Amino acid sequence: MSLYLGRRISLAWLALCLTACNLTACNTSVPQKSATEAWWSRPALASFDSSRLRAQSYIQVQGNRFVDDQGNTVIFRGVSIADPDALVRQNRWDKKLFQEIRSWDANAVRLPVHPAAWRDRGEQGYFALLDQAVLWANELGLYLIVDWHSIGYLPNELFQDPRYETTVTETLRFWRAVAARYRNVPTLALYEIFNEPTTMGASLGQPEWETWKSLNEKIIDLIRANDPTAIPVVAGFDWAYDLSSVQNRPISRDGIAYAVHPYPQKASPSPPTEENYHQVWQRDWGFVAERYPLIATELGWVKPGGRGAHVPVLNDGSYGPQIMSFMESRGISWIAWCFDPNWAPVLIEDWRFTPSEQGAFFKQVMQEKAGSSQ
Amino acid sequence: MSLYLGRRISLAWLALCLTACNLTACNTSVPQKSATEAWWSRPALASFDSSRLRAQSYIQVQGNRFVDDQGNTVIFRGVSIADPDALVRQNRWDKKLFQEIRSWDANAVRLPVHPAAWRDRGEQGYFALLDQAVLWANELGLYLIVDWHSIGYLPNELFQDPRYETTVTETLRFWRAVAARYRNVPTLALYEIFNEPTTMGASLGQPEWETWKSLNEKIIDLIRANDPTAIPVVAGFDWAYDLSSVQNRPISRDGIAYAVHPYPQKASPSPPTEENYHQVWQRDWGFVAERYPLIATELGWVKPGGRGAHVPVLNDGSYGPQIMSFMESRGISWIAWCFDPNWAPVLIEDWRFTPSEQGAFFKQVMQEKAGSSQ
Amino acid sequence: MSLYLGRRISLAWLALCLTACNLTACNTSVPQKSATEAWWSRPALASFDSSRLRAQSYIQVQGNRFVDDQGNTVIFRGVSIADPDALVRQNRWDKKLFQEIRSWDANAVRLPVHPAAWRDRGEQGYFALLDQAVLWANELGLYLIVDWHSIGYLPNELFQDPRYETTVTETLRFWRAVAARYRNVPTLALYEIFNEPTTMGASLGQPEWETWKSLNEKIIDLIRANDPTAIPVVAGFDWAYDLSSVQNRPISRDGIAYAVHPYPQKASPSPPTEENYHQVWQRDWGFVAERYPLIATELGWVKPGGRGAHVPVLNDGSYGPQIMSFMESRGISWIAWCFDPNWAPVLIEDWRFTPSEQGAFFKQVMQEKAGSSQ
Repeated sequence: MSLYLGRRISLAWLALCLTACNLTACNTSVPQKSATEAWWSRPALASFDSSRLRAQSYIQVQGNRFVDDQGNTVIFRGVSIADPDALVRQNRWDKKLFQEIRSWDANAVRLPVHPAAWRDRGEQGYFALLDQAVLWANELGLYLIVDWHSIGYLPNELFQDPRYETTVTETLRFWRAVAARYRNVPTLALYEIFNEPTTMGASLGQPEWETWKSLNEKIIDLIRANDPTAIPVVAGFDWAYDLSSVQNRPISRDGIAYAVHPYPQKASPSPPTEENYHQVWQRDWGFVAERYPLIATELGWVKPGGRGAHVPVLNDGSYGPQIMSFMESRGISWIAWCFDPNWAPVLIEDWRFTPSEQGAFFKQVMQEKAGSSQ
Repeated sequence: MSLYLGRRISLAWLALCLTACNLTACNTSVPQKSATEAWWSRPALASFDSSRLRAQSYIQVQGNRFVDDQGNTVIFRGVSIADPDALVRQNRWDKKLFQEIRSWDANAVRLPVHPAAWRDRGEQGYFALLDQAVLWANELGLYLIVDWHSIGYLPNELFQDPRYETTVTETLRFWRAVAARYRNVPTLALYEIFNEPTTMGASLGQPEWETWKSLNEKIIDLIRANDPTAIPVVAGFDWAYDLSSVQNRPISRDGIAYAVHPYPQKASPSPPTEENYHQVWQRDWGFVAERYPLIATELGWVKPGGRGAHVPVLNDGSYGPQIMSFMESRGISWIAWCFDPNWAPVLIEDWRFTPSEQGAFFKQVMQEKAGSSQ
Repeated sequence: MSLYLGRRISLAWLALCLTACNLTACNTSVPQKSATEAWWSRPALASFDSSRLRAQSYIQVQGNRFVDDQGNTVIFRGVSIADPDALVRQNRWDKKLFQEIRSWDANAVRLPVHPAAWRDRGEQGYFALLDQAVLWANELGLYLIVDWHSIGYLPNELFQDPRYETTVTETLRFWRAVAARYRNVPTLALYEIFNEPTTMGASLGQPEWETWKSLNEKIIDLIRANDPTAIPVVAGFDWAYDLSSVQNRPISRDGIAYAVHPYPQKASPSPPTEENYHQVWQRDWGFVAERYPLIATELGWVKPGGRGAHVPVLNDGSYGPQIMSFMESRGISWIAWCFDPNWAPVLIEDWRFTPSEQGAFFKQVMQEKAGSSQ
């Protein structure tokens, strides 16, 4: 038991205390810190006050579908924004951003949380941002996906770049904290456990599906114990492209979904016809949608020479209709990357929200679908 | 081999060196740190100089008893104080505190070391406090219990609150450092490995006794290799209440003791008679005392509405005589929580040491027992 | 995908941004950091530009020999310097150091990288030093050995002193980073995985060869995936003295070498004749040279009472000829410790490079051998 009774101590009192210390028996060097900043005053976790929210249906898993409280199928169509912390630092963290996304008829927004940003801002500081996102999205009828935005091989704690560095322990603590805080929040529907698992051609170690599977199961159990209503989302290797291991060794937990990042150059069928693309996508990850809810938590393209052009997102534009017909015919949810002029492939060209080529395309699909039953 | 021959380098010399650096071939940026603060000058571990101590019997384990050098049974009856670091920061770290505790006829003081305090102060800085405690306690004929005061599930590195956060590695390093420093110090009799193990209803993961058992065995081996005379103390799950696993799967090491924190609301027999309490306590942890030394490293109560009242310490006061008759009839040692007006349930109301209700009760028991043979 | 398009943001713009922030909807506290220091601007790994290097043969393993591009046997004879970071801080990091070493007819220089120095300076900062070492050594025709200079038992993350503290994760990240940066650099021939493995008589835990073996194999695989041409070097327990486990349970990877630190007092044959020393050395580690390339990455001695005299390097000087005849008759490479007046046993007495007793001895051996075929 360790209930600390002391309350906020005034700085005046503290100054007195420290002065006294120099005059009495206390000859141990005293760190000149305010007692209100001391380790015993660090705040404990507290759940989000859901009385601040408007009514919004909890999303659940039913067979291979996301459903709402009435059992209606829900297909997510939306966009990723940049890391909320990066938006704050660039003065772009604003409700207007969410309003614009809503005006495109998106029903979901993905929030990529970089481990380095989480550490820089701290748990309390980052939750201040997620709280705002929850209030804005809830008011606008949007759902949120929280994404632990790392790239690498978590079991070895090796990552592509410094910004993606984290540890197994930090990842467990992140998900425990998120699940404990948002346990009563329907708005935050999906917990994307790890953005893009990869060993970069063994340069981060040998990938092992059984190891990855059991680490995800551990995280899922942890999430569930803290938030029984959240839907954990699991990604596969090759930067979240390859779900083939799910065929014979799926995650041994109910009520979860899978994620895929099917950028255009991840598959290279010959010849590159729509039919051939669909065949490869079906084999690599599309088959998962027959048994589990599936969501492409990132997709998008840019023309060679276009803004932020880089492998594996280069495409002449045929990708848009091809991937949309694949997704929509199978009821697969999707989130386009990225509703930000600084992260490619971009959906907007500037902060006046001018749609890019792919932006205009995905906007049109969302607006057409918003009128239909799903 | 890496014996560094250089000694303290004067700041004047260093300034010269750094100035010279700017003028010569050295175009690498040089951190403007004193060489005396450089990584190669960080001090190595050194053992406590036990020639500073008065004669005091080493405590050992014999069957289910603590015994002194003459084989006499020793039963610890004492109090926990607050974390020494917190006391320093509040100007309450003083020999007078130990003198007052001695005047209550306690024979032991427990020192709860929070991981966050250990990190804030650093190994050298924290040992400065423990060294003082050893000198004060030794002079007064008191024994000390060092307690790694975390709450949570160490195998998963998940904890109740930020102040309790640690890692397996930090815990191993803490115990190696403590055991190496106090290997020759009889005063520091018990090493309480981990204050309160719990998964908080699986919200910190699934608890597994075998995992917990083997981690404790690893720490015990580490302690023993550095300090063969220390007595490691092991706690069970449910915030150190439940020792039932010891029945069939005890820790596979000799010479250890077990800890329990039997706060009043941890058991709820119906009706709540003394006989029924004793029956439940016997089943949950009391049986351990038949085979091993057992010590309640925390116990105490407060009346509903009293100072710092909180679950699970609420009780009308009947708890005091009930738990004392249970402990004393079985030779179980005990330490009351907490000899500090800021940590509940309190034993003192203020820094003039005015006893609280439970404080007066435990003081009386200690004074009565001090006159008896044990 | 996470390509950030933003480039360096001017401080003026940032100031504007932060000011604006106070006036608009953004009421979240903004850390007052330049965006150029933000987590998303931290630089990614980049390989060393090998076009800056003169032609130098890659070293490979062939049977129990190091060989050059023509298949000629290479025997390394050289010296360790101090940690480059320590040399910078003392204004001794200079090409002249490498020139002096070359003038002694050494063909290799060992660079001990202390984990604490690596952390203090940071990856980019430390690579700036290693880059310089590569350029200097390459120009002078020297080979380099990078040594992760820790002492302790890495599987338990417990170490002899604070300066040697590291973690498994940090060690993996270090070797991945080094291998990725120097993959095209023949100059950096040997990667010495861990300087001196030891549990200090179980005070850091129980040593287990199988655990140590598999951790080394994991690191070797990681190195190889990033740098297929590097030669990983593995050490045994007892401060890198004992390789007896290699007899029956060698590291299960091809193309590696073993390291030994055969300081004089590690063996104590009776009577201490050359023949008896050779017999013990053959049994403890010399036998390894029959099947694998072997290199004594540290050796040296000092007379009792001499500069920096300490166990286990004390010797009357007979050690020099005894160990040299052992090494040279078996084709074992060796590196003397230490070409620095501050780290004992010293090879130089001062920064005018005056040879010590052992310095003069090893200098003579190197100069004699430099004239021979190997």
